[in-house]
Amino acid sequence: MVKLKELAELVGAQLVGDETLEISRVAPIEQAGPGELCFLANPRYAAKLADCRASAVIVAPGVESPGHSLLISANPYLAFARILAHLQPPPQVERRVMEGAWVDPSAQVGGAVSIHPGCYVGRNVRIGRGSVLYPGVVLYEGVQVGEDCVLHANVVVREECRIGDRVILQPGAVIGSDGFGYAPDGRRYVKIPQVGIVEIEDDVEIGAASCIDRATLSVTRIARGTKIDNLVQIAHNVRVGEDTIIVSQVGVSGSTHIGDHCTFGGQAGLAGHIRIGDDVTIAARGGVHGDIPAGQVMSGTPVMQHRDWLKASMTFPKLPEIRRDVQSLKKKLAELENLIKEK
Amino acid sequence: MVKLKELAELVGAQLVGDETLEISRVAPIEQAGPGELCFLANPRYAAKLADCRASAVIVAPGVESPGHSLLISANPYLAFARILAHLQPPPQVERRVMEGAWVDPSAQVGGAVSIHPGCYVGRNVRIGRGSVLYPGVVLYEGVQVGEDCVLHANVVVREECRIGDRVILQPGAVIGSDGFGYAPDGRRYVKIPQVGIVEIEDDVEIGAASCIDRATLSVTRIARGTKIDNLVQIAHNVRVGEDTIIVSQVGVSGSTHIGDHCTFGGQAGLAGHIRIGDDVTIAARGGVHGDIPAGQVMSGTPVMQHRDWLKASMTFPKLPEIRRDVQSLKKKLAELENLIKEK
Amino acid sequence: MVKLKELAELVGAQLVGDETLEISRVAPIEQAGPGELCFLANPRYAAKLADCRASAVIVAPGVESPGHSLLISANPYLAFARILAHLQPPPQVERRVMEGAWVDPSAQVGGAVSIHPGCYVGRNVRIGRGSVLYPGVVLYEGVQVGEDCVLHANVVVREECRIGDRVILQPGAVIGSDGFGYAPDGRRYVKIPQVGIVEIEDDVEIGAASCIDRATLSVTRIARGTKIDNLVQIAHNVRVGEDTIIVSQVGVSGSTHIGDHCTFGGQAGLAGHIRIGDDVTIAARGGVHGDIPAGQVMSGTPVMQHRDWLKASMTFPKLPEIRRDVQSLKKKLAELENLIKEK
Repeated sequence: MVKLKELAELVGAQLVGDETLEISRVAPIEQAGPGELCFLANPRYAAKLADCRASAVIVAPGVESPGHSLLISANPYLAFARILAHLQPPPQVERRVMEGAWVDPSAQVGGAVSIHPGCYVGRNVRIGRGSVLYPGVVLYEGVQVGEDCVLHANVVVREECRIGDRVILQPGAVIGSDGFGYAPDGRRYVKIPQVGIVEIEDDVEIGAASCIDRATLSVTRIARGTKIDNLVQIAHNVRVGEDTIIVSQVGVSGSTHIGDHCTFGGQAGLAGHIRIGDDVTIAARGGVHGDIPAGQVMSGTPVMQHRDWLKASMTFPKLPEIRRDVQSLKKKLAELENLIKEK
Repeated sequence: MVKLKELAELVGAQLVGDETLEISRVAPIEQAGPGELCFLANPRYAAKLADCRASAVIVAPGVESPGHSLLISANPYLAFARILAHLQPPPQVERRVMEGAWVDPSAQVGGAVSIHPGCYVGRNVRIGRGSVLYPGVVLYEGVQVGEDCVLHANVVVREECRIGDRVILQPGAVIGSDGFGYAPDGRRYVKIPQVGIVEIEDDVEIGAASCIDRATLSVTRIARGTKIDNLVQIAHNVRVGEDTIIVSQVGVSGSTHIGDHCTFGGQAGLAGHIRIGDDVTIAARGGVHGDIPAGQVMSGTPVMQHRDWLKASMTFPKLPEIRRDVQSLKKKLAELENLIKEK
Repeated sequence: MVKLKELAELVGAQLVGDETLEISRVAPIEQAGPGELCFLANPRYAAKLADCRASAVIVAPGVESPGHSLLISANPYLAFARILAHLQPPPQVERRVMEGAWVDPSAQVGGAVSIHPGCYVGRNVRIGRGSVLYPGVVLYEGVQVGEDCVLHANVVVREECRIGDRVILQPGAVIGSDGFGYAPDGRRYVKIPQVGIVEIEDDVEIGAASCIDRATLSVTRIARGTKIDNLVQIAHNVRVGEDTIIVSQVGVSGSTHIGDHCTFGGQAGLAGHIRIGDDVTIAARGGVHGDIPAGQVMSGTPVMQHRDWLKASMTFPKLPEIRRDVQSLKKKLAELENLIKEK
């Protein structure tokens, strides 16, 4: 239980209502009850508050609701995130190397680190203070993990890869798998050893079963603050800039460089060896074959300006009709030409 | 070895031929030999039976084959499934917690449960009678698994998620990974804790390396009888109805609700916050951006009626020709207009 | 440190320059320094050599660079691959069954095999000489693994599947998960047991978190020399030919047969029950609905000849303009018709 006043101070929100209210948890607007806080994401849905039984609501300025105490925030979504984090109990994990974990004697493990049964920590691995390895995490030789990271169950980090501070890896994420490179030898293919690494900078999160391939010779880099969803493929030698959002099932081909603060919708695909500027948005399913300058919003395959794609894709179902019209026009025009020539 | 008569009774099929036949296994029609049973999926391929060396065949009514004993069933595909299951030996697993498995003392494990080496069963987990955990399965704190489930190797179920009865999770499936939610704070992103859960109802199957994200606040639900293939992404707060088929590499974005008895072809993608009615079919690769009423069959990106997509996509390669025709028509029409004005 | 002359002999390259040079490693052209070897992939970029500080460069015939010793090779990419492999130290793994690995007494493990902690090797498994199992690898009952294979962490191979020699499985790859097959029983679905296997032939590589489903009754086969990238789905009963390249996130539906020496770009999708000839190239994102004869290069959804797709997709953004032109033509033509009739 936390006082509403404490939450208001935490997020710098204006409290209108009962300062002494005790809040037990945050709940969805349709399900919240007394003692609970909810969150109005969009002022358009303010009518929903009439039936909401929560004691308090996080809202944007201008929203009123006589029946509730209000936390008024200029960025209610951010206030919601911060309050949720504040109310969430820290994970109940033992801060030690547990029985059933295999840690090489040469590994350096910081204080308050939690290593669960079934983890494997190889030679010369370093793990910073406060990091948590859930069961089944495998760190190959020479891996470095920073402080306060969370590596969920069955994450694999292959040899020599580096993970910054406060990085979260969801279950089954694979860091440092071999890049996909082969040299043709007649009709056969010879594997090109992938001797580079992956570097994941601070505050990155990588989703479940996503794969970040190690570079051929140098570094595949995911820069600070970037968030990658589940089942995403990042190929070898890629560089993803800072604070970029990559939604589920996106694939980025080898040696492509992506700027800062981009957003890629689900199932988008990027060709290899291209350059994407800062602040580029690729809509879900966008297929990118060439460079994109900063600030563009693109859709389609191959991508075009999003507004052009909206119009073209709306017209697409009419294509058979357009074709029939053209056939008919050709015929009529030919008739007309004949008619005129006859005159 | 099972008598053909026993199999006929098992599936309620009419037996025409040798009741005393002993069947050793079901085999593909091209490979089956004496003592084996095969299955004619499609009466159109009845000619294949001429060369088939199986002793018996499961067929639909109306198919004849003098050289074989026949099991005639109104639903031969279902009969095939049931007979295969009947002939399949139960998995040879030890029904106990094996050495090398880590089970928290607070966990409640039912009778005849099999927990292999390398499994981790956290605090307050409950596992129902007869369930099997293959090696490397990780159940975080508070997870509930029902009866007669099969959790294949390296499956992860994160904290507090609930799995019904007779659920099958293929290797590497991830249940309860964090939903992908961040609040912008200037150009940076702040993680929104995902404090909800996933609930998988009875008789669901989930494919290898598929990911079902936990809800932000409440429940991501996969309802009874739904079957999900490999490498599928189900985002947070999604509800998938009963008896729905989701083929490989489909992605469903956050907060979307899907009805009962839908079918989504491979690599389809659904936007977030939309409603899909019951009995909707989305063809492979379909990209769904908005609500779909019950019973529709849709294709394309964005989806349209399947028959419209078939026509439009057939016309698509002719688009350059159509464009040239239009240019030519414009020119000819202009000439004609001039000609008429001159007259 | 290896002498440049030794590397030249290894790959049959012509050495122009200092035979006694000692090479420490291969480095990217922009980063290489003294004692290092780099690789000029494309003669078009020969100008880059002016600023390159490497001691030696692998080049194609005809490239000159007075400041460097040169290894001149008719197939420089292959020379690069071979030299990288030669310089790469063998993995520093202990050649034994390590403590913390669970190996059934009935398993047959060849000489010089490395089995790490957290591995599980089931009943009657056979593992050939020199193979390495990284931590968390799970081999179900009856699995066969050939010689000199590398199974990376958390790979799962389900019951009775067979892996050839020199096969590499990247972390989290799943071999032998159940095929996705259900028989409708009214509105519900009954699982069709998948009692077949997967056979992976020699020299295959399979990427991280890729899934190869076991056959319903017989064999899902990945033939010799084929290379499969991360997050790829191969459904039940599929046959992939020899020396085929399948890039990340491709999905191949059930019972499809693919020829030898094909190339499928990222995110391509193939329908079930189709036949793809030898030497077929499907561009990234290609959606294949029907058979493709040998040697074709196809793009789009559904696929068409690549050159047709290039033209059609270039025209696509102009579709709204084409439609407006057609509307305008119809109107003008009607006016003209009226005008002529009046005359």
